[in-house]
Amino acid sequence: MTDFFAGIPKIAYEGPETDNEFAFRHYNPDEIVAGRRLEDHLRFAVAYWHSFAWEGGDPFGGRTFDRPWYPQDTMENARLKADAAFEMFALLGQPFFCFHDADVRPEGATLAESVARLDEITDYFAEKMEETGTRLLWGTANLFTHRRYMAGAATNPDPEVFAYAGATIKACMDATMKLGGENYVLWGGREGYVTLLNTDLSREADQMAAMLAKVVDYKHKIGFKGTILVEPKPQEPSKHQYDYDVATVYGFLKRYGLENEVKVNIEQGHAILAGHSFEHEIALAASLGIFGSIDMNRNDYQSGWDTDQFPNNVPEVTLAYYEILKAGGFTTGGTNFDAKIRRQSIDPADLILAHVGAMDVCARALKAAAAMLEDGTLERLRAERYAGWDTEEGRRLLSRETGLEALDALVRERGLDPQPRSGRQERLENLVNRFV
Amino acid sequence: MTDFFAGIPKIAYEGPETDNEFAFRHYNPDEIVAGRRLEDHLRFAVAYWHSFAWEGGDPFGGRTFDRPWYPQDTMENARLKADAAFEMFALLGQPFFCFHDADVRPEGATLAESVARLDEITDYFAEKMEETGTRLLWGTANLFTHRRYMAGAATNPDPEVFAYAGATIKACMDATMKLGGENYVLWGGREGYVTLLNTDLSREADQMAAMLAKVVDYKHKIGFKGTILVEPKPQEPSKHQYDYDVATVYGFLKRYGLENEVKVNIEQGHAILAGHSFEHEIALAASLGIFGSIDMNRNDYQSGWDTDQFPNNVPEVTLAYYEILKAGGFTTGGTNFDAKIRRQSIDPADLILAHVGAMDVCARALKAAAAMLEDGTLERLRAERYAGWDTEEGRRLLSRETGLEALDALVRERGLDPQPRSGRQERLENLVNRFV
Amino acid sequence: MTDFFAGIPKIAYEGPETDNEFAFRHYNPDEIVAGRRLEDHLRFAVAYWHSFAWEGGDPFGGRTFDRPWYPQDTMENARLKADAAFEMFALLGQPFFCFHDADVRPEGATLAESVARLDEITDYFAEKMEETGTRLLWGTANLFTHRRYMAGAATNPDPEVFAYAGATIKACMDATMKLGGENYVLWGGREGYVTLLNTDLSREADQMAAMLAKVVDYKHKIGFKGTILVEPKPQEPSKHQYDYDVATVYGFLKRYGLENEVKVNIEQGHAILAGHSFEHEIALAASLGIFGSIDMNRNDYQSGWDTDQFPNNVPEVTLAYYEILKAGGFTTGGTNFDAKIRRQSIDPADLILAHVGAMDVCARALKAAAAMLEDGTLERLRAERYAGWDTEEGRRLLSRETGLEALDALVRERGLDPQPRSGRQERLENLVNRFV
Amino acid sequence: MTDFFAGIPKIAYEGPETDNEFAFRHYNPDEIVAGRRLEDHLRFAVAYWHSFAWEGGDPFGGRTFDRPWYPQDTMENARLKADAAFEMFALLGQPFFCFHDADVRPEGATLAESVARLDEITDYFAEKMEETGTRLLWGTANLFTHRRYMAGAATNPDPEVFAYAGATIKACMDATMKLGGENYVLWGGREGYVTLLNTDLSREADQMAAMLAKVVDYKHKIGFKGTILVEPKPQEPSKHQYDYDVATVYGFLKRYGLENEVKVNIEQGHAILAGHSFEHEIALAASLGIFGSIDMNRNDYQSGWDTDQFPNNVPEVTLAYYEILKAGGFTTGGTNFDAKIRRQSIDPADLILAHVGAMDVCARALKAAAAMLEDGTLERLRAERYAGWDTEEGRRLLSRETGLEALDALVRERGLDPQPRSGRQERLENLVNRFV
Ligand SMILES: [Co+2]
Ligand SMILES: [Co+2]
Ligand SMILES: [Co+2]
Ligand SMILES: [Co+2]
Ligand SMILES: [Co+2]
Ligand SMILES: [Co+2]
Ligand SMILES: [Co+2]
Ligand SMILES: [Co+2]
Repeated sequence: MTDFFAGIPKIAYEGPETDNEFAFRHYNPDEIVAGRRLEDHLRFAVAYWHSFAWEGGDPFGGRTFDRPWYPQDTMENARLKADAAFEMFALLGQPFFCFHDADVRPEGATLAESVARLDEITDYFAEKMEETGTRLLWGTANLFTHRRYMAGAATNPDPEVFAYAGATIKACMDATMKLGGENYVLWGGREGYVTLLNTDLSREADQMAAMLAKVVDYKHKIGFKGTILVEPKPQEPSKHQYDYDVATVYGFLKRYGLENEVKVNIEQGHAILAGHSFEHEIALAASLGIFGSIDMNRNDYQSGWDTDQFPNNVPEVTLAYYEILKAGGFTTGGTNFDAKIRRQSIDPADLILAHVGAMDVCARALKAAAAMLEDGTLERLRAERYAGWDTEEGRRLLSRETGLEALDALVRERGLDPQPRSGRQERLENLVNRFV
Repeated sequence: MTDFFAGIPKIAYEGPETDNEFAFRHYNPDEIVAGRRLEDHLRFAVAYWHSFAWEGGDPFGGRTFDRPWYPQDTMENARLKADAAFEMFALLGQPFFCFHDADVRPEGATLAESVARLDEITDYFAEKMEETGTRLLWGTANLFTHRRYMAGAATNPDPEVFAYAGATIKACMDATMKLGGENYVLWGGREGYVTLLNTDLSREADQMAAMLAKVVDYKHKIGFKGTILVEPKPQEPSKHQYDYDVATVYGFLKRYGLENEVKVNIEQGHAILAGHSFEHEIALAASLGIFGSIDMNRNDYQSGWDTDQFPNNVPEVTLAYYEILKAGGFTTGGTNFDAKIRRQSIDPADLILAHVGAMDVCARALKAAAAMLEDGTLERLRAERYAGWDTEEGRRLLSRETGLEALDALVRERGLDPQPRSGRQERLENLVNRFV
Repeated sequence: MTDFFAGIPKIAYEGPETDNEFAFRHYNPDEIVAGRRLEDHLRFAVAYWHSFAWEGGDPFGGRTFDRPWYPQDTMENARLKADAAFEMFALLGQPFFCFHDADVRPEGATLAESVARLDEITDYFAEKMEETGTRLLWGTANLFTHRRYMAGAATNPDPEVFAYAGATIKACMDATMKLGGENYVLWGGREGYVTLLNTDLSREADQMAAMLAKVVDYKHKIGFKGTILVEPKPQEPSKHQYDYDVATVYGFLKRYGLENEVKVNIEQGHAILAGHSFEHEIALAASLGIFGSIDMNRNDYQSGWDTDQFPNNVPEVTLAYYEILKAGGFTTGGTNFDAKIRRQSIDPADLILAHVGAMDVCARALKAAAAMLEDGTLERLRAERYAGWDTEEGRRLLSRETGLEALDALVRERGLDPQPRSGRQERLENLVNRFV
Repeated sequence: MTDFFAGIPKIAYEGPETDNEFAFRHYNPDEIVAGRRLEDHLRFAVAYWHSFAWEGGDPFGGRTFDRPWYPQDTMENARLKADAAFEMFALLGQPFFCFHDADVRPEGATLAESVARLDEITDYFAEKMEETGTRLLWGTANLFTHRRYMAGAATNPDPEVFAYAGATIKACMDATMKLGGENYVLWGGREGYVTLLNTDLSREADQMAAMLAKVVDYKHKIGFKGTILVEPKPQEPSKHQYDYDVATVYGFLKRYGLENEVKVNIEQGHAILAGHSFEHEIALAASLGIFGSIDMNRNDYQSGWDTDQFPNNVPEVTLAYYEILKAGGFTTGGTNFDAKIRRQSIDPADLILAHVGAMDVCARALKAAAAMLEDGTLERLRAERYAGWDTEEGRRLLSRETGLEALDALVRERGLDPQPRSGRQERLENLVNRFV
């Protein structure tokens, strides 16, 4: 037991009117919303990396945090870090966490040592998970921090790096399986390029697909029942990342025949960097059948990089959960906070309260989304707008049998002169505002 | 014969040292570069819309140009406009032009009348093409200006609009075929959404695919030998356009089994709006087997919308042609200037000189790209970087038979500790600068 | 009496629970908030241009709306438009409107005719204002639509255009004075450049300052008691607009000694285009003593141009009103909706409901902002953060008498090693979320 | 003597046709251009921080470089680093370098120790400068890396940090003076805010001005003859940096009466982040009388953060030098490469060749700019465009004596109907392309 969070109480639901900073106002895990417990809808996860491994550095400055588990280069401190992490999980009561290998143990001198350390610390995790009931939403391998990966992991021009990456993924998949993880995630931070001048796009695509196929094969081999998820991001740290956005990942999966084996983990910040809204990426993934999970962390709209901030805008978050609920809600996925407190938020309480506020924002948003869906007006208006396509003629027009000549004949025969109908955008926005 | 370009001479090649504004400094059509005439490499096309139909308006102001063919609402003025257009083609001597139906004839009261007018004006074009030798790079249908298309053409919620769009495409394909066009282009300006709140992504994707399949079928039915091209653009006028970028279009084509029938027409400005460099989009399309043609018009890097300016930066344009030459050069495609002079460039000479400058920029760039390719250093360095993958072991690692366990074993047995090698970016940039 | 809004009832406050689309849920004009009627806090204005003069065009398409006052080229239709406008004002009950000369009357063949028409229509306005009680928040001159202004108005290279612009401003100031306008606004849509290659920054700055000085002088001469406001925007339609943002306008006013005569009208969309948040621009203007009024219309965060949409995000709008209330609230300024319905929102009801929704958003936001200010926690925490500066030593350190050597001595003598304190960002965001 | 650059020859000018990677193709220091040696025009400086102190880390990965002077925590290694740095200066032959205190010596346990170390290492520099002839373009203090500055230096809410920052600036100014530096620079990396919620703009502006006034006073006190320069940047690491851009800095200087004491150091990358072109910022600073020096390092146009890359686009760089030459060229300022090699460029040769390429790009650009200026066409066309303002009537119209009423009378009496004239943008762009 560390005293890192000394004096901070377990966070309980106290309702919207409480004055207690250390309480949930909106997140009542047991509240039933649309037939499901709120906890089971939202499936919150804490990200180990930002909350426990990141030291507060940015491109212009170093460490700002002061943590008892620094320096992070011994297994003893790795254990101390785990103690603090699980103490936070107990305070927050969120059901899940997520981690990379590099977050939880210091790199070893060799792969073997690194893997052994991963085994050791994840055994320690297993005990703590048993004790606290916290589960693993997903595991993942950090294939971007070490200098060996500076030119990519699977897409590295050096096959040895590819092999090293594959071996590392294996270890992380093994750990995820051991801990009962519900998904395994791949974020290709350096699977991209910094300059096209030294890059062979065709080779790198084939390499990335080869690795992903190996991951899928290994999943089946070991009987891992979770979902393999790819996390799109358009750039940063690379100039161009191959898993640019949901549409790009879909095309990649189709190209290599992996679209039934792999889904996406969508992050709001990455959606924005790619020029999309978060709800767009979710709705698109759902319509393509590859929606998996979310990273619920926003960017600053006035900054051009990934700021990974905790969510704080209920209307925005509502639109995201609305698309998730429309798609049937999470199955293996969940709401991971891939979010970091600002580097000036150096107190332990900041870390706790950032999560408390975010969980409340998500709870308000999910309840609003469920109410909108239950109300049904939005979906009714949407359906009415396309009603013409549900007629026999609509279906006939769409069918491949009806060629351009038939369309031409139809327009001429009927003297068609189609008149526009209002898209009603502002009225729909007003409607949404009744719920948020 | 109009007197619109009175006093402007035919543009001839005079070499880099000439003081004549009305001369090519770098574009010598008959110069042989890498075994091909420069004209046949570049395959320049003038865009009818910006050069002859656009009146100089922008969102904050109306017409600035004064043209003898205004107002553009009579067939007589349509003919006068065609006269001026072909006079410009004769002055510039570029081999191709491109047009939408809406550029060349006023809309009729009915589809039948619109099509009849299109027939009439394209018969007039045919005579002029015969006389001047100017050919048609591509035709296309304007499915975004008329208010009937305000909510999309193929993706409209109203099947009647879909039918009207299909009939219109048929007419444009017929006209393109009649004029010997080498490609047919679809740009889905309003095939997207303005708000997700009223949009059904699944339906609209199916509608768009249905229309594209009909286009492909009709092409085969009438024996059109040209290429069907889709032009990606991420947004504007829509908030989100479905043909976002090359990767997105590829995924769409794969999803609907059209990837062998359709290629892309890539515009620099649209690449930039989507967060990519022009050369990225070209290289990606080439690696996916769907590279078709280009629109060589840039955006302003400090403006967030599509400014459609004539190219003026030789180093940038060089990188684009380098990727095109690496991919084997154009087949049916070409270099279309989907570019408009600024609305303050109101003199006829501005229109001519914008094209002259752009053609020179492209000629310099293509020659530089060809020299870089012939020099071979860049490609040699690229190949060396990936040489490890060309060994037997490289191929074995990639193969699906080699699973993650085998990679793990390999790393452990060999005690692999891969060391990074320089990516040499600045040296490669220096190398490029020797040629531009 | 037109029948344009036939069937649409006067909008009344019915409270949050009403099901009536045509009712206010949050805007109760007479509700007292922080000691002032809500109407007097918010001071809503409808913008004549977007709501009545804009026809639904965008860069890729023409008119989508169908209004009885089209075509807008006769005084008869100008009167009909005014009838409809004042009918909408009566339905909404907002206290103010704003207009440009070009919105309200067709351009005449000469300046004299244009001015006479402006006089005529504003006399008509005066009657209607008398009848309905609607007041004028501000008048302004449209110096950007006509082709004579394509290269700027005050900053035009042609002195004749400068003169024409000045004469036009005079007419608009006269009309504003006649109608009892509370402010006069200058938005320099084309006071900027499209290319630096043909631009003389020094001359154009002097020209712009000369015109602004004339405006100030004329204000005093005619005894206009309202405020002269400049509206910053960074670009669009120009590549670079001189009134880039609040900080730039402040520097300009200081340079030419006009900082006590001119304030700013801040638009959310323009703030975002300039890379700022709306609340930043308001807070900055307040701290510089030049805060005047706001245009409450947002941009789409995923689009790079000025979309001028109605506000719909309560938390965002709350932060804006919070800064306004902190600065003491509006004096002559107000909340103008420089917002347009989407071009697909073609029904009269769309126009009404867009305003209703926006007024409700603002009302919710203002009430939340007032509650936050009354609660006082945020201001208390802010003050505490800087408390060290309120000590005698703090003041001494700041004073110019204390030089770098004295600071050096102090650090050495005391052995200062200042320790960072948490910035508490997430906790402050949580605090805000209690109110929105 | 280190062997870090072993095998790399001194870089000499060999002309455009050389095949030697380790040679200048365009930078011949002694070439006379427009009456001045190229070296004296360009006044190149190497930035110590990126080239010698930065270890290759980015937000997603750590050190990639391997340098003999790592770890950088001893004075011995600081000396070794200096040895390597001056060896590079000798190889490149550039006349200047620039540094922060934090680049050149490890932080001490106290201010006194830090300053003593700075003295020691700068004495070492002095010897090396004497030997090699390399001079100091500017010195500066790093007030952003250490955690004490996480909430700003001069603008920190804690007066102790203000004092510490002031003492540190004093030490850096002393060192700059000792080494004969020609300027002293302040870049306010954390002089801004991360959230407005905890920020008092008015206080922070006053604090920043107070510190700047102390800097000016101390300069005069010690008789430093160099120029005090502020380097604008809009954001990053902060969300909003107070020295946003040139216009903002100008307004700040005017507000506090410092506009005759302080000039700006303009960086291309920062210009772009602020939504401007580099040439805009230079031209604006020149027109405001505050142009000082440049940081010649670009951003990637497809990335939204400051990538600090070496320049490689000659046409772009030409426009920058054109504005500098028009303004009379550098006085105390120069061309600093605040540029870092990509983190994959890990070889010593990469560091050398990045500078070689950049110096050649600048040399080509400066020669092109000088030729354009000498040719005079661009300036002649610019002057002609505004010629109307050089008449007596032009001057009269501008004068404050001529009020709006006089403008109105003039338009009416003359029946003015000003006609637009072409802005000739494309022709001017073509003209520029003759020189680049
Ligand atoms: Co992220
Ligand atoms: Co993430
Ligand atoms: Co375009
Ligand atoms: Co195009
Ligand atoms: Co606007
Ligand atoms: Co506005
Ligand atoms: Co920078
Ligand atoms: Co810099």
